[in-house]
Amino acid sequence: VTTDDTAGGAARGSARDLLRLVATGMADSRADLARLSGLSPSTVSQRVEMLIAQDLLREAGAGRSRGGRRPRQLEVPTDTGVVGAVDLGAHHARIATLDLSGQIVTVREFAVEVSEGPEPVLSKLLAHLTDLIGELPGGRTLRGIGVGVPGPVQHDLGTVVSPSRMPGWNGFDVHGFCAEQSDVPVVVDNDANLMALGEHRWAHADLEHAVYVKAGTGIGAGVISAGRLHRGAQGSAGDISHCRVSADPTTLCSCGNTGCLEAVASGAALVDALRTRGLSVTHPKDVTRLVQDGEPVATAATRGAGRAIGEVLAVVVNFFNPQAVVIGGILADCEPLLASMRASLYERCLPLATQTLTIERSSTGVNAGVLGAAQLVIDRILDAS
Amino acid sequence: VTTDDTAGGAARGSARDLLRLVATGMADSRADLARLSGLSPSTVSQRVEMLIAQDLLREAGAGRSRGGRRPRQLEVPTDTGVVGAVDLGAHHARIATLDLSGQIVTVREFAVEVSEGPEPVLSKLLAHLTDLIGELPGGRTLRGIGVGVPGPVQHDLGTVVSPSRMPGWNGFDVHGFCAEQSDVPVVVDNDANLMALGEHRWAHADLEHAVYVKAGTGIGAGVISAGRLHRGAQGSAGDISHCRVSADPTTLCSCGNTGCLEAVASGAALVDALRTRGLSVTHPKDVTRLVQDGEPVATAATRGAGRAIGEVLAVVVNFFNPQAVVIGGILADCEPLLASMRASLYERCLPLATQTLTIERSSTGVNAGVLGAAQLVIDRILDAS
Repeated sequence: VTTDDTAGGAARGSARDLLRLVATGMADSRADLARLSGLSPSTVSQRVEMLIAQDLLREAGAGRSRGGRRPRQLEVPTDTGVVGAVDLGAHHARIATLDLSGQIVTVREFAVEVSEGPEPVLSKLLAHLTDLIGELPGGRTLRGIGVGVPGPVQHDLGTVVSPSRMPGWNGFDVHGFCAEQSDVPVVVDNDANLMALGEHRWAHADLEHAVYVKAGTGIGAGVISAGRLHRGAQGSAGDISHCRVSADPTTLCSCGNTGCLEAVASGAALVDALRTRGLSVTHPKDVTRLVQDGEPVATAATRGAGRAIGEVLAVVVNFFNPQAVVIGGILADCEPLLASMRASLYERCLPLATQTLTIERSSTGVNAGVLGAAQLVIDRILDAS
Repeated sequence: VTTDDTAGGAARGSARDLLRLVATGMADSRADLARLSGLSPSTVSQRVEMLIAQDLLREAGAGRSRGGRRPRQLEVPTDTGVVGAVDLGAHHARIATLDLSGQIVTVREFAVEVSEGPEPVLSKLLAHLTDLIGELPGGRTLRGIGVGVPGPVQHDLGTVVSPSRMPGWNGFDVHGFCAEQSDVPVVVDNDANLMALGEHRWAHADLEHAVYVKAGTGIGAGVISAGRLHRGAQGSAGDISHCRVSADPTTLCSCGNTGCLEAVASGAALVDALRTRGLSVTHPKDVTRLVQDGEPVATAATRGAGRAIGEVLAVVVNFFNPQAVVIGGILADCEPLLASMRASLYERCLPLATQTLTIERSSTGVNAGVLGAAQLVIDRILDAS
């Protein structure tokens, strides 16, 4: 667990920045790296040797000649090391193995109830991950594990703090528990942060400022500022779930306040509301199914949820002025929710703040979380090297 | 006018970063600069020569010896160049001359009504600035002018966009107008952004993430993210004035919506409200005076304003998780406003987000804006060099 608050490291030119230049195909030699980073050739060589010693980079014969001595070509090995990624939701988990360039090798999803408590749930996840790694072709070494949980995480400690709908998890040291059962680096973060990282890395790497909203059983956001994940002072940046919204100020939230966004517009709140109206729903995906089937009560409820989310995002967009708002999570498949969210956001935003704003559905979809978890642990391995 | 969205430049190690290392006393030789920046000695030398050629750095004889050749000592000349800074408010302006390390040389404040329109107001400001520069001892060269205005500024163009209470200013090219009357670089920004820059540079340079609120005739905020000014996609980041608050949803705002923070809690709104109650107030400073005199109606009104500001800041703090919220502007002198603001902020924030949050009054006070304007134009001069 690191104490830095950016995804990409403090300085452009760090070992992780050099690795990323190679992983993304922007550089394939020490000369390229020196030119792109502005670092001295000796600093570049020193960092490259470190990455090679860590098996995070390797030399692959002769590169393109530019006259004079033929440079040795650099590449990220994709057939030796892997990282494990876990994206835990309220009712399911998605786990994956990824190569050191961050691409998915294998992926699996299964049902698990977060309410069973941290030890049973995490043990199950780690067992599944061990299985998944065991099924890989030989010669792959596990290098690290990234874990996302659907609640607030104090990033410097890797503990869950005051989560909603996660009984038994408050104060639980997720990092410590996972690290004890593994001899590789473990990083833990909030699911929305990981989604932001994954989506940004693989679908919107050009965006400087963006907000990624996860609308699932709970509601959270991940923030990209100046191209890097913004965690804030305590790691809680993006947690908009207890912002007050004007709709239904009487609804009591698990936090003890009333009128929280989460209590009004989350998948869990919609399930409760629709069940009260006599509809047969158990999980947020049932809500999405009903809306897609044109069920009017469910559609009206998701419209209300969309308005409430848009109301909070209007403050966020005025304050942060992002280039894009990206929506993921199971409720992002409800078109009426997105439409109402856009309407209420546009109604309350400054003209300047929405002039070039794009609002779109996540491109990496269900994989955003595991892609982000892998990115985070790869960065962690680099920080330690 | 630059298109970058950070105060300090894209990379640590840029010319402006090197200058800042010298200006803040962290480095006084090329060797120090190479060590602190990680740049190669040749890159450092190249940038230092450029800064010397621009008269932004100079060599000051022999520095401390570390054995071997005695390094030449570097310093920022404080007796040759100056920059001009203008901080325009709704009813007054503060102008200053500052040396190239960003320290105030001379400063002056006078009454001016922004409602007189851009050309008369800006002409008056530039005339005052010319006077102020003329009064300096000889040998000082004007190197640039930084201008802050109390409304939204599209940073890449330097134009004012959809301001409140600035009749005639919408779409006005402040940058173009000032640049035409001057042969030095001109930068234009929103007053709250400049206050954030000035306060951060001189009072809180250690803070990574902070929000500076200006509570004056209008309400605005400036955002520091990862140690640098966050402007966002269009330069409107921090503009919280049209966020909806729950108090008095019937008040029509100049933007055409109702219940905006500005329409409920700004100095202008308080003046209107107190005048309706028969109190003798013309400017926000009259409100502050009444509150300091213990006038109950004024005190109650500023408490309401504080609650509304706190309500919006609660969303901001949940979303951004800053280390500090700093309040400046004339209303920051109303203790009851600060108390109510704190109360409503703490009531609606995540425990994790407020665990180590500090909420305090601006330390640089009335000079925050001119200090920030100078910082911005010094950075601009460096970008161009």
